Amino acid sequence: MKKKIFIYDTTLRDGAQAEGVSFSPSGKLRLAERLDEFGVDYIEGGYAGSNRKDMEFFHQAADLGLKHARIVAFGSTRRKGKNIKDDPFVSSLIAAPTETVTIYGKSWLLHVHEVLRATPRQNIEMVRDTIAFLKDHGRQVFFDAEHFFDGFKDSPEYAQQVLSAAVEAGADCLVLCDTNGGTMPHEINEITSKVCCAFDVPIGIHVHNDCGMAVANSIEAVRAGAVQVQGTINGYGERCGNANLCTIVPNLQIKLGYNCVKKSELRHLRELALFVDDLVNCRPDIRAPFIGHSAFSHKGGPHVNAVQKNPSTFEHIDPANVGNERHVLVSELSGGSNVLLKAIEVGIGRDESVRGKSDILAALKDLEHRGYAFESADGSFRILVQKVLKKHKSFFDLDGFRVIIEKRGKDEPCISEATVKVRVNGEIEQTVAEGDGPVNALDGALRKALFRFYPSISNVQLTDFRVRILDPEEATAATTRVLIESTDGDDTWGTVGVSGNIIEASWEALFDSVEYKLFRDEEKRQSKSRKKKKK
Amino acid sequence: MKKKIFIYDTTLRDGAQAEGVSFSPSGKLRLAERLDEFGVDYIEGGYAGSNRKDMEFFHQAADLGLKHARIVAFGSTRRKGKNIKDDPFVSSLIAAPTETVTIYGKSWLLHVHEVLRATPRQNIEMVRDTIAFLKDHGRQVFFDAEHFFDGFKDSPEYAQQVLSAAVEAGADCLVLCDTNGGTMPHEINEITSKVCCAFDVPIGIHVHNDCGMAVANSIEAVRAGAVQVQGTINGYGERCGNANLCTIVPNLQIKLGYNCVKKSELRHLRELALFVDDLVNCRPDIRAPFIGHSAFSHKGGPHVNAVQKNPSTFEHIDPANVGNERHVLVSELSGGSNVLLKAIEVGIGRDESVRGKSDILAALKDLEHRGYAFESADGSFRILVQKVLKKHKSFFDLDGFRVIIEKRGKDEPCISEATVKVRVNGEIEQTVAEGDGPVNALDGALRKALFRFYPSISNVQLTDFRVRILDPEEATAATTRVLIESTDGDDTWGTVGVSGNIIEASWEALFDSVEYKLFRDEEKRQSKSRKKKKK
Repeated sequence: MKKKIFIYDTTLRDGAQAEGVSFSPSGKLRLAERLDEFGVDYIEGGYAGSNRKDMEFFHQAADLGLKHARIVAFGSTRRKGKNIKDDPFVSSLIAAPTETVTIYGKSWLLHVHEVLRATPRQNIEMVRDTIAFLKDHGRQVFFDAEHFFDGFKDSPEYAQQVLSAAVEAGADCLVLCDTNGGTMPHEINEITSKVCCAFDVPIGIHVHNDCGMAVANSIEAVRAGAVQVQGTINGYGERCGNANLCTIVPNLQIKLGYNCVKKSELRHLRELALFVDDLVNCRPDIRAPFIGHSAFSHKGGPHVNAVQKNPSTFEHIDPANVGNERHVLVSELSGGSNVLLKAIEVGIGRDESVRGKSDILAALKDLEHRGYAFESADGSFRILVQKVLKKHKSFFDLDGFRVIIEKRGKDEPCISEATVKVRVNGEIEQTVAEGDGPVNALDGALRKALFRFYPSISNVQLTDFRVRILDPEEATAATTRVLIESTDGDDTWGTVGVSGNIIEASWEALFDSVEYKLFRDEEKRQSKSRKKKKK
Repeated sequence: MKKKIFIYDTTLRDGAQAEGVSFSPSGKLRLAERLDEFGVDYIEGGYAGSNRKDMEFFHQAADLGLKHARIVAFGSTRRKGKNIKDDPFVSSLIAAPTETVTIYGKSWLLHVHEVLRATPRQNIEMVRDTIAFLKDHGRQVFFDAEHFFDGFKDSPEYAQQVLSAAVEAGADCLVLCDTNGGTMPHEINEITSKVCCAFDVPIGIHVHNDCGMAVANSIEAVRAGAVQVQGTINGYGERCGNANLCTIVPNLQIKLGYNCVKKSELRHLRELALFVDDLVNCRPDIRAPFIGHSAFSHKGGPHVNAVQKNPSTFEHIDPANVGNERHVLVSELSGGSNVLLKAIEVGIGRDESVRGKSDILAALKDLEHRGYAFESADGSFRILVQKVLKKHKSFFDLDGFRVIIEKRGKDEPCISEATVKVRVNGEIEQTVAEGDGPVNALDGALRKALFRFYPSISNVQLTDFRVRILDPEEATAATTRVLIESTDGDDTWGTVGVSGNIIEASWEALFDSVEYKLFRDEEKRQSKSRKKKKK
């Protein structure tokens, strides 16, 4: 039986301290349900007391009927010089309908003196009183020893006296915190080992990422005997973030053989990570270990070759175990095998891909030399392959476009107007649109022109627009690469355009985006009708 | 004397393997100069052989006159069954004008068998031959033992035999690579220790971040005896990236007391990181340890109070040591001293700067909120300060402009035409110009209009043009920031424009560029005539 490590999620409390991260009340409930499904053991829901919204969350969460996880209310030790019964913060911990509470207290003399302005003994009494009171009220109590590692390095005796007081008062778990995130992995290991030897209660770890060590520090604490790991989804948190559970859980479970969540649930890790990014409206980190879009992307030709022969040559785990997948990037550095895999990935048949491989590669190298990049432009890549294989079908022809940007006086806003003239099955359509900027106007005019022939165009939304100047030293005459990302709700695709004229580059990417959509629609229709015929 | 750790930067080679990261030829040279200034010891510039652009870089870099760093050419051992003299890849390593070369070779039997399809002995001969050949040609040779840790776990004997062959052939450094990024810190420590005991040559470490451990692994290797650390700026690299030098260097130097770069240069770390982000047009990670914008952000209230009383209560290092600063999210005073320094830097007198400080700060905050960035727009900052101090003088007024971009048929080139109407001392001038793209046309028309009044305008050249989409999820309606760099031979200045319309944003930056030039010319004239009078 593998050793169980308890996962304690504090995304809703410590994660929400991050710059730009906040949760709506319904978002908090939805995340609690997702975390429960995933199999975390504890969900720290927020502060008891200081925040009415958090108290409402505790009440609503109690009705969620979670299968496995326990909701935890967070608070601090009583104030200095206050009678515990008169401390409103401690009372609200009792008022919160949770079986488990976590309180934080000081274990670094610097903070006792300079922040609390208390004596070492006063601080210890605050810890002891508060835990005893909460235990008297039947709670499971976790004690977060704030700045524990700094405190221990300063005075091991005092840091341990604080823990002793917590244990005597009945604490169910001692959580060692690296609150400033400044401790190194070997120090974490050494100090946690000492604490695990000295105390007979479960030990937990809560660290921050200020030295880029939060994951390593959490793992080292577990190797030293800690059984509870506190962290957040995607590492959200103040400053450089908290320990990232999306990295820690697969490391513990897949690489080191501990037991954290069900193996079948771990396969939903990437989904969970993207769900949280979505919830807080943050752009996913494509390079995130295990769950990032690039985590199993291969670019170099020899690598791709080797992965095809045996994935374990260049992949340290099977991406499916964390719900991710392998991607092959097409780029300058790539050889035939990249192109082959990529062609298959975008839906070209294997035989056809093999046959067209060298032609596709030649076309690709030529375009890349001119500044195109297909790494995030699957849509344009697909169209390119179709053209090389002489299977490309045009859905419309361009007779021309004109964009006018006009400013009539220093403080007047700029006006952008675009006209587009296209031909569909011999019919000419000419439209005009204004927009927020020239590309927006052009996009509007093009859709307007095509809508009559292809109404599904109206489902397409542009979700990303990036501009890159390729030879900036050419200044305003420089070559420009435009990348567009589009979605129709079902699919998402990228397209690319390159030109010395930024409007023309944007136009190319827009054109590809629309063609790709129309092409995919047709492909889907054909595949449906083939299925029908078979029946 | 603190122990020296050699920093080996591979941003230009391994970093360029990252999804979306590529360098222009001039960008590579600029980065090499910056890395040299910063004090890295080695700069891996690219592949010798496979890529003509990289070979050009080696030749151009040889003329840069770097003060400290050595440029390194990268390649692999000779092919199986090839005579070393006939191997074009090895020959091109000799052709590259660098004193140091790094070659990678296999040390994991799985790769020897499945990727090389060679015998263990054949592989060892490939390593031995190649290093001996390069040493015969007078090179300093570093040996990257690819997949060393996986190889060692599989067969410690074979992995060490490969290293022995490298040492016998004369390798100057054995670099242990965790190529798949799947190794844990304690394994890195244990295996590196064994290698350091077994061999009497310097040991290096090269790791990837697939488990979020690249920083911890690099540090553990150094603690075990490694003296060379390979990594990239901002951790750019394939999949989850390489080891991040921006985290490793401050950890080694500030937290652990090793000697990597000059203390005074470490204070430019954040600047270097932002420079590279800009060069590859990637959005900086605000949560990055040490150098991220949020790395030393504090919320208001007692927390900030504590930091002000004693920064070490909540900060693990002094942010200035890595060129970062504390951000107090609610305090209006944050940044005041920076603004003061900056105002003096761009030529405003000290007294005036002190007097205007809070007004400048307020204007700055407002503009930054709207998307402006002044880090590389000294010209626009100077104009802003002049305006705030009510000392701004207009050299011309804009009555209006119009840009037309027209495409008349699918395969016809786009034509861009701009008309500009300006007023100088009551005189109206109206001009028209065509250009390579709309901004180039606008630039041409503006200069044409002003030339009659200010002939010195013709000396100005635009040397850089960058476009950043600030809210890419708004797609083509997004806010756009344009940065322009201009020079007149004597001075170089940057200007910035922001708008929902890319043409208007470019116009703003162009306008500032011209105003700054005219303003500086006048300033120089006045200072000359003052000097004359004194005589």
